[in-house]
Amino acid sequence: MAATAKSSFSRAQFESLLKRRFFFTESFEIYRTAPNFQGDNRGLYDYGPPGCALQANIVGEWRNHFVIEENIMELDCTAITPADVLKTSGHVDKFADFMCRDPAKGEYLRADHLVKGVLETRLDNHAKVVAGQGKFTKLDNATVKDFEAILAQLDNYGGPELGELIERYDIRNPNGDGKVLPPVPFNLMFQSTIGPSAAAPIYLRPETAQGQFLNFQKLLEFRRGAMPFASACIGKSYRNEISPRSGLLRVREFLMAEIEHFVDPDTSKSHERFAEIANVQLPLLDRETQLSGSTNVRSVSIVEAVHGKTAAGKALVDNETLGYFLVRIYLYLLKIGADPSRMRFRQHLDNEMAHYASDCWDAELLTSYGWIECVGCADRSAYDLTVHAQHTGSSLHVEVTRPTPIEVDAWQAELDKKVLGPRFKKDAKKIETAVSALDQETLASLADELSQKAVITVPTAEPLANGDSSVQLSGDICTIQKVKRVEHTRKYIPNVIEPSFGIGRILYSVLEHVYWHRPGDVARGVLSLPILVAPTKVLIAPLSNNAALQPVSKNLAARLRRLRIANDVDSSSTSIGKRYARNDELGTPLGVTIDFETVENGSLTLRERDSMAQVRASEDEIVQAICSLVEGRETWADIYKRLPPFTSQGQDE
Amino acid sequence: MAATAKSSFSRAQFESLLKRRFFFTESFEIYRTAPNFQGDNRGLYDYGPPGCALQANIVGEWRNHFVIEENIMELDCTAITPADVLKTSGHVDKFADFMCRDPAKGEYLRADHLVKGVLETRLDNHAKVVAGQGKFTKLDNATVKDFEAILAQLDNYGGPELGELIERYDIRNPNGDGKVLPPVPFNLMFQSTIGPSAAAPIYLRPETAQGQFLNFQKLLEFRRGAMPFASACIGKSYRNEISPRSGLLRVREFLMAEIEHFVDPDTSKSHERFAEIANVQLPLLDRETQLSGSTNVRSVSIVEAVHGKTAAGKALVDNETLGYFLVRIYLYLLKIGADPSRMRFRQHLDNEMAHYASDCWDAELLTSYGWIECVGCADRSAYDLTVHAQHTGSSLHVEVTRPTPIEVDAWQAELDKKVLGPRFKKDAKKIETAVSALDQETLASLADELSQKAVITVPTAEPLANGDSSVQLSGDICTIQKVKRVEHTRKYIPNVIEPSFGIGRILYSVLEHVYWHRPGDVARGVLSLPILVAPTKVLIAPLSNNAALQPVSKNLAARLRRLRIANDVDSSSTSIGKRYARNDELGTPLGVTIDFETVENGSLTLRERDSMAQVRASEDEIVQAICSLVEGRETWADIYKRLPPFTSQGQDE
Repeated sequence: MAATAKSSFSRAQFESLLKRRFFFTESFEIYRTAPNFQGDNRGLYDYGPPGCALQANIVGEWRNHFVIEENIMELDCTAITPADVLKTSGHVDKFADFMCRDPAKGEYLRADHLVKGVLETRLDNHAKVVAGQGKFTKLDNATVKDFEAILAQLDNYGGPELGELIERYDIRNPNGDGKVLPPVPFNLMFQSTIGPSAAAPIYLRPETAQGQFLNFQKLLEFRRGAMPFASACIGKSYRNEISPRSGLLRVREFLMAEIEHFVDPDTSKSHERFAEIANVQLPLLDRETQLSGSTNVRSVSIVEAVHGKTAAGKALVDNETLGYFLVRIYLYLLKIGADPSRMRFRQHLDNEMAHYASDCWDAELLTSYGWIECVGCADRSAYDLTVHAQHTGSSLHVEVTRPTPIEVDAWQAELDKKVLGPRFKKDAKKIETAVSALDQETLASLADELSQKAVITVPTAEPLANGDSSVQLSGDICTIQKVKRVEHTRKYIPNVIEPSFGIGRILYSVLEHVYWHRPGDVARGVLSLPILVAPTKVLIAPLSNNAALQPVSKNLAARLRRLRIANDVDSSSTSIGKRYARNDELGTPLGVTIDFETVENGSLTLRERDSMAQVRASEDEIVQAICSLVEGRETWADIYKRLPPFTSQGQDE
Repeated sequence: MAATAKSSFSRAQFESLLKRRFFFTESFEIYRTAPNFQGDNRGLYDYGPPGCALQANIVGEWRNHFVIEENIMELDCTAITPADVLKTSGHVDKFADFMCRDPAKGEYLRADHLVKGVLETRLDNHAKVVAGQGKFTKLDNATVKDFEAILAQLDNYGGPELGELIERYDIRNPNGDGKVLPPVPFNLMFQSTIGPSAAAPIYLRPETAQGQFLNFQKLLEFRRGAMPFASACIGKSYRNEISPRSGLLRVREFLMAEIEHFVDPDTSKSHERFAEIANVQLPLLDRETQLSGSTNVRSVSIVEAVHGKTAAGKALVDNETLGYFLVRIYLYLLKIGADPSRMRFRQHLDNEMAHYASDCWDAELLTSYGWIECVGCADRSAYDLTVHAQHTGSSLHVEVTRPTPIEVDAWQAELDKKVLGPRFKKDAKKIETAVSALDQETLASLADELSQKAVITVPTAEPLANGDSSVQLSGDICTIQKVKRVEHTRKYIPNVIEPSFGIGRILYSVLEHVYWHRPGDVARGVLSLPILVAPTKVLIAPLSNNAALQPVSKNLAARLRRLRIANDVDSSSTSIGKRYARNDELGTPLGVTIDFETVENGSLTLRERDSMAQVRASEDEIVQAICSLVEGRETWADIYKRLPPFTSQGQDE
């Protein structure tokens, strides 16, 4: 089936199904089509009943698979975030894309997408000319090579480089062929203000992670000080994309589920439960392979990937914790319906990582838009906790008692308070704080400086009375010496491994993976969603709208509801085949028909979506079979083996 | 227990428990306490692990109780909303509170809260003087009466009236006694812009309802045209409160769960499943009772409330659909732990209803802050669908085939196209559209006008070439006549009954309801959360940290996880009594202890939180009992009856 689907996949057919069955719709559609609408609803989508139920089931299984199974501490943090927080995290300065304005059209274009689109078109046209298929401009060999090289490392370029490429290759807006202005950075966060004074700027969070980092000490306390531990947050995030396209894949408001796993870097990031998943094989595409110009995926067991060595003498995956999560992500995606043959884990190249990441593997799913990053699994090292601790002066570290105390050589700065007070007056306290905050490395270099120049400059967290944010201290007031110190505890800032799930992207990609159509009939689409996540589990369909059949279907619906099994009664007068076909498109795995035999002897038929096979048995047996399927205790093959098959009526057309 | 709790309730003790156990925390706390923080984090709260799990369970049960049980179509709509939508719905103009600025302090105060606070303080002080308890200003009898009258109808006052009261009674900022400026309206929606041009204004939604209304036609189609039906949306909404106080009860970002039940007004809003709940008794406080100056709640069966008549000859609750939802709300609140003796349904007074509502009953829970509106159940009539249809020109109505066609007298306007085109040129089309959009009522009055003045003015949806938004039409171009018409269908705009749940308010109020402390020890708090919503179902506690006990607790935890039962292993070296006490505060209903007898014969003890009673049995029996309790098949009384009690060790201290 999967092969049929892939070879004959039509995105138009597929998207028409999703819209017809109200999996999703553009938000505020009736406004966009209304006269005089000045707004912008691009990149905003509403999920309709089946999309919303599918999303709820995907999130529900995420909670089971991660939060409950890994005993993760879930948080619900606000999306509204004071600007200071995102200034510290680096998002205010760095979370931007470059855009070019086309003054003729008044359009804004994302600079890298513009370059990519135009160069790809030129290469395509060139290929057509070569193949004798059209009258386009032929390129010389050097230009073809240049274009290919540019496209291969597009993520490498910043604004100035993109501007240079646009200039050099006369890249113009494909819509109207107008020249564009040089790229300028555009921050992707939505900005607003909070409170009546409007003096306090806020952003809508672009990720859920920051809220988790800020709660680190409370989490550590909740876990009674035991490391490692993980927190999680499921919630909406916001990115003001310059020019959203690609349907559900690039949107401005989206659901994320993020885990922050905090780990002591001195434990080699080993993982307690690694042995449980050591032999699972993953499809890996590592950095070196990509740099060699290949995209060949290797199937490697995670124990080999973490504990074996590559030709370059390094492990393929850096540590057990990262490896453990890659496997758990893989198993989760399989459970909810992803096709393993269209799944890979790709390691980020150095230049494409976010500003906070030291390593990153993406779980990518292959769709008609290409390979889509659905889960990022980044090692954020100690970046975030460090910058927030520095900015706020709060403690965001772990302190553990050493099994045996150790004696260490440590640099120590001392201030002569008799001189300090009179000389610096009100600033004295701030200077004391600043000096005591100096770390060992800084102290070492200041000691050196002090011995050479007899004066050092120390930055202060708060500005001094004269407005300066640093102070000069001479040797008569400050001494820096190496001393012996007994340390009973060890302090460290945990490293963070972050599996970050884009739920909308996963949902869309899985829908592509489970979509196919009945052989020979592209109009008869089927979504083979696993029963675990299918929006509705059971269609209840009386064969005719004869009044005698109504009480049976009503009672059955109520019985299934009491078991919390989502079902839908379709008593419409359309043929049973059409009702089945509608539910195949909705991904409903099971269908129960009620006919006159039901009224006579209480038996029902149960149909399975993918095979269209049916069985017939008593209501109790059918309900028991449904429960067993929903709870994953039996497969359809099991049911079909043990209940009598049914072939006479109520067939698919 | 409930009585103990209420009589000795200390909010300080209670909130200290919630914060200590990380049910919630103020968001960005480490930033607020950092030097130089210029932001505003008031009214923003994060839920910690138990708060978040409780919230997830409350929402999960909401989905079962409403979405699955009532077969409601759930949507997930975006929070980002174009300004046009909220202009049409009335929120841009009317969703505001009045505020006064204190120029001396630079503070903004909500005007009604300011008047309320100051007058209540004056009355309190007066009462103390009368009782001989302090040296405050005594008030004369007329003033006392005035103040009481003002407080009773505070919701009645708009900005000018509040300004007059502030002037007349010299009401000042209690913080510093400064005079305040006159009240000005402050719109409560967070505003931003979308897209790089920043030309398109957006708001964060203040309710989830609008997204549902805009999808009405798609929902109707999904339901194959069958009425009535309901949609629902669970998601964050945002209100930029002027000065948030009262902890979780008045916040700027909050989770809502809203149902929009669309019903044909001609069916008297009857409800198919009304009979199932007809005899449920509800605690009702209707409008007439309140206007008579009483707050006495009557316990009335819903069938009597809907189908009986009050002394005034009206039904207490307007219709079956409203009544049905009131009962379903009541049953839901009971299930998740609300105390029925602290619950009431209060009908809104005319002047306190939202701008869109024609009737409204609030489910209120009594807390230490007074009666709190937790669920609003409003009849929004056809307001929203009507205004959106008018603004967009989209169809947001239902058209049903009449059993037998009817002949009706109808006003019909005709334009003489031979005159229209030449006279109005490019505007002709717009004028045709405007005339065809006129409803019967307008046509009737225009017919009258035309006969008297020979010219009428018709508003146009789009501005005309000269910029006018209406056109004058004379009798030579436009005729309006009454004609006979056969109608085969009936068109109507559905009315909407809207149960709207503030999840955060429910969560907080339920926590107050289930909180009590062990007799004689205020420091030993207990949260008697129903097992259905308790954050963690089972504490697993090895009696000592002897290595022999670890594998048992690990295996038991894994076994419960496989059954998707949230559990927590506490192997810390603190006494078992302290570990129980911590879990009582977390609301964990069950505790399993593992001791040396477990290693010998495999038996475990199971403790129940509220009674502290324990039983001892084999692991299989204990796990079976846990499942049975979690799934609601048995109560603790049942378990305690059938498993051997245990009293010897591992007791509460």
